[in-house]
Amino acid sequence: MGALHAGHVSLVRQAAAENSHVFVTIYVNPTQFGVNEDLNSYPKTWDSDMKQLEALDSELSNTTGGRVEAVFAPTTKAMYPTLPPDSTLPGTGSFVTITPLASLLEGKSRPVFFRGVATVCMKLFNIVQPERVYFGQKDAQQCVVIKRMVKDFHLNTEVRVLPTERESDGLAMSSRNVYLGERRRRAGIVLSRALRAAADAYAAGKLKRDQILAQAWDVTNQSRVEQDALGPLERVKIEVDYISLADPDSLEEIEEVDVERGALLSGAVKMMPLEEVSRDERLGLGGDKVPVRLIDNIVLLRGRPQ
Amino acid sequence: MGALHAGHVSLVRQAAAENSHVFVTIYVNPTQFGVNEDLNSYPKTWDSDMKQLEALDSELSNTTGGRVEAVFAPTTKAMYPTLPPDSTLPGTGSFVTITPLASLLEGKSRPVFFRGVATVCMKLFNIVQPERVYFGQKDAQQCVVIKRMVKDFHLNTEVRVLPTERESDGLAMSSRNVYLGERRRRAGIVLSRALRAAADAYAAGKLKRDQILAQAWDVTNQSRVEQDALGPLERVKIEVDYISLADPDSLEEIEEVDVERGALLSGAVKMMPLEEVSRDERLGLGGDKVPVRLIDNIVLLRGRPQ
Repeated sequence: MGALHAGHVSLVRQAAAENSHVFVTIYVNPTQFGVNEDLNSYPKTWDSDMKQLEALDSELSNTTGGRVEAVFAPTTKAMYPTLPPDSTLPGTGSFVTITPLASLLEGKSRPVFFRGVATVCMKLFNIVQPERVYFGQKDAQQCVVIKRMVKDFHLNTEVRVLPTERESDGLAMSSRNVYLGERRRRAGIVLSRALRAAADAYAAGKLKRDQILAQAWDVTNQSRVEQDALGPLERVKIEVDYISLADPDSLEEIEEVDVERGALLSGAVKMMPLEEVSRDERLGLGGDKVPVRLIDNIVLLRGRPQ
Repeated sequence: MGALHAGHVSLVRQAAAENSHVFVTIYVNPTQFGVNEDLNSYPKTWDSDMKQLEALDSELSNTTGGRVEAVFAPTTKAMYPTLPPDSTLPGTGSFVTITPLASLLEGKSRPVFFRGVATVCMKLFNIVQPERVYFGQKDAQQCVVIKRMVKDFHLNTEVRVLPTERESDGLAMSSRNVYLGERRRRAGIVLSRALRAAADAYAAGKLKRDQILAQAWDVTNQSRVEQDALGPLERVKIEVDYISLADPDSLEEIEEVDVERGALLSGAVKMMPLEEVSRDERLGLGGDKVPVRLIDNIVLLRGRPQ
């Protein structure tokens, strides 16, 4: 969807290491945004995107691997040639639905999201016919949905999932981070810290849901106590949407980790708009007036210790 | 779906004339049968199917065209590798939905039918990766749905639609015709006669819906009067599900034919079980005890006269 950051660039770099010709698609897909979501305000940074890809392609010219062959940035009429893109439910148009995966976790808050993602990926895969497709682990559920789609529809491509790129303090890179001013940016690491605490419990031998997730909730609750003690010029209100411990393939919630299967530890928080801002405060895109949903996850690997 | 008849064979013959390698898929797809439909009793005639294909392939060996390269008859586990095939609504699994096309005409009586058809065709197309796919005009709405799917998902294949093969009295060939004993078989031509009468009105210059469809209804009403005059040992009860005059691409009902677009004239009737049968009566598969739904259609071509 463009608004490229180091996470995207790492996907392209790895794709070039494993393939001779890399196609980058940049398309802000309307059918994956709910009617109340941020389609219109989603960051569009075409010039910056092209500069990053050009810089990467120069870097690649010094390697023995592949190059960036093309950027595919279609119009919506090309992607949705018959009926206009619809992101309502049940909605009119031609869709791929992946049930029940698409209705769990992120799908509870965003009921049309994975229908839109699966639909646009099916189109892009058919147009480009790639031997391999590259996705970031940051969008863990998206990766599971796409792998399921490829398997169930017998698509002739290999799904490669690469690790989440993070800022130095652990915040997962995301195109939506530009909405976070300095204050929300600092507070936003609570999610990755919470998940890290839970993952540490697994690494230390805990397998039961409550033992693992309690560590995450301790972090988010502690953060809430700290924020609530501050005044409106300093505090950040954060709502936890979910913290999940789920089977890595079915995404069903689990009561205990089967070490032969591992698990997906994931969460989403909503960073609420700042109540008051001071004059000299460094604000994010949109003046920190819009809520920002952050997601993150850690894969609890099969076997132990990690 | 197997149970091959001359209509299927004509598709394979034409495919061989236009391609070097023909793949025939035979798979009775569970997700396109509603829970109350005839999945379990659907005719399965593997030996007869293979004989017909072998005979055709011998015939093809004397031509300069292609041959039958393979018959692909997968297991359901191969076609639905993750979750078992579900034909309920909303249903769990990975599906292709084509809305609103799939909910019109046949879709009103069979709400999961085109979801199942589109889903299994997407899988088959991805497995075989054919340059061309062949469908019979008999299943007119199926052809429209598949063409829409190919366009909207940018599938790299050409959809070829070949004319309906008919018995000498005009009855459209169908695998389900084996359920019709002599009495229902004779009465079953009412649908093709009704559509032919309506098409004749179009050919004679009528463009308005009522003027065209009245001719079809005259035929079905007349047939009902004749049947009602007979006793239970002679009569056949026929329920008309619909007679439609629709746009050839959107399948929306139209009030008047636009001669630049043409139209699809189609219908469905339900042949009810025989009330009483005589000893020496020639019965169909299942003893004429099951209702049989017959469909048929005529394309009203662009431009006139036909």
